[in-house]
Amino acid sequence: MQYFEDVIIGEVRLLGAHTLTREETTDFAAKYDPQDFHLSDEAAAKSFFGRVSASGWNTAAVMMKLLVNGTVGDPDAGVGGIGADALRWLRPVYPGDTLSLQVENLAKRRSRSKPGQGTIWQKMTLFNQDEQAVLTATLIGLIKLRDPAGDPADGGTPPA
Amino acid sequence: MQYFEDVIIGEVRLLGAHTLTREETTDFAAKYDPQDFHLSDEAAAKSFFGRVSASGWNTAAVMMKLLVNGTVGDPDAGVGGIGADALRWLRPVYPGDTLSLQVENLAKRRSRSKPGQGTIWQKMTLFNQDEQAVLTATLIGLIKLRDPAGDPADGGTPPA
Repeated sequence: MQYFEDVIIGEVRLLGAHTLTREETTDFAAKYDPQDFHLSDEAAAKSFFGRVSASGWNTAAVMMKLLVNGTVGDPDAGVGGIGADALRWLRPVYPGDTLSLQVENLAKRRSRSKPGQGTIWQKMTLFNQDEQAVLTATLIGLIKLRDPAGDPADGGTPPA
Repeated sequence: MQYFEDVIIGEVRLLGAHTLTREETTDFAAKYDPQDFHLSDEAAAKSFFGRVSASGWNTAAVMMKLLVNGTVGDPDAGVGGIGADALRWLRPVYPGDTLSLQVENLAKRRSRSKPGQGTIWQKMTLFNQDEQAVLTATLIGLIKLRDPAGDPADGGTPPA
């Protein structure tokens, strides 16, 4: 993660890539989303998805992986996640798909209650290899100020 | 999942439980959220969390597991997930914690564009063994009508 001072509002980065294997999607779905259409070719063929697809939570986890691994920053800069708004699965993700993450820094606000920390809002768009958006979300996280005693400016406007 | 006709708006169910092991939280974090404080005791001790904690996306995946495994319904009734709103990680989740899921059916709406299907909004609250809420979210999913030619009523009010 990046320190508060280093986050440039409006900056857009493309981070990636991660290719989902059938082994990964099956393993994840068996553990966390054991709906038949994520596990069985036969059930999937009769489903909306047509063939076996990744759990949406598997896709969301890949988003996090690409964010963490792709962010040139400091391993010590992140405090923790606050949440996610408007998470949407726009298209199915299939085994073999290669996902890349676009991250746009929307806003940052110094914390009133926690000196030395600030909140960051980032718009996530996960694309497949055909440049189709498969997932969008706004992530909200807590990050540290590089200089806890500093007075860096807020930036951007948090989504309503 | 349940068929549209079977979803009772206002119904609250408690589903569970899942105990997170250190092996599970480490495995998940190594794959999808390799921040030091999820993996290293030493880094975690210096972090906000105090000790190694589960990735928030691991916690979200456990929510999905409890929902899928705990819903008495029909494996054929779910179409797929649309998304999640207002996902919030309220408290850290640690290895050894046992999570249970409270599900409240908020609203259901017949689909205008997809005959035979409808949208359901469900409020999720994940509790730890001390009855503290650790995660809240509104899940939005697409489910089938049991009778595609039927005319079941909508119910409830989707969150703004």
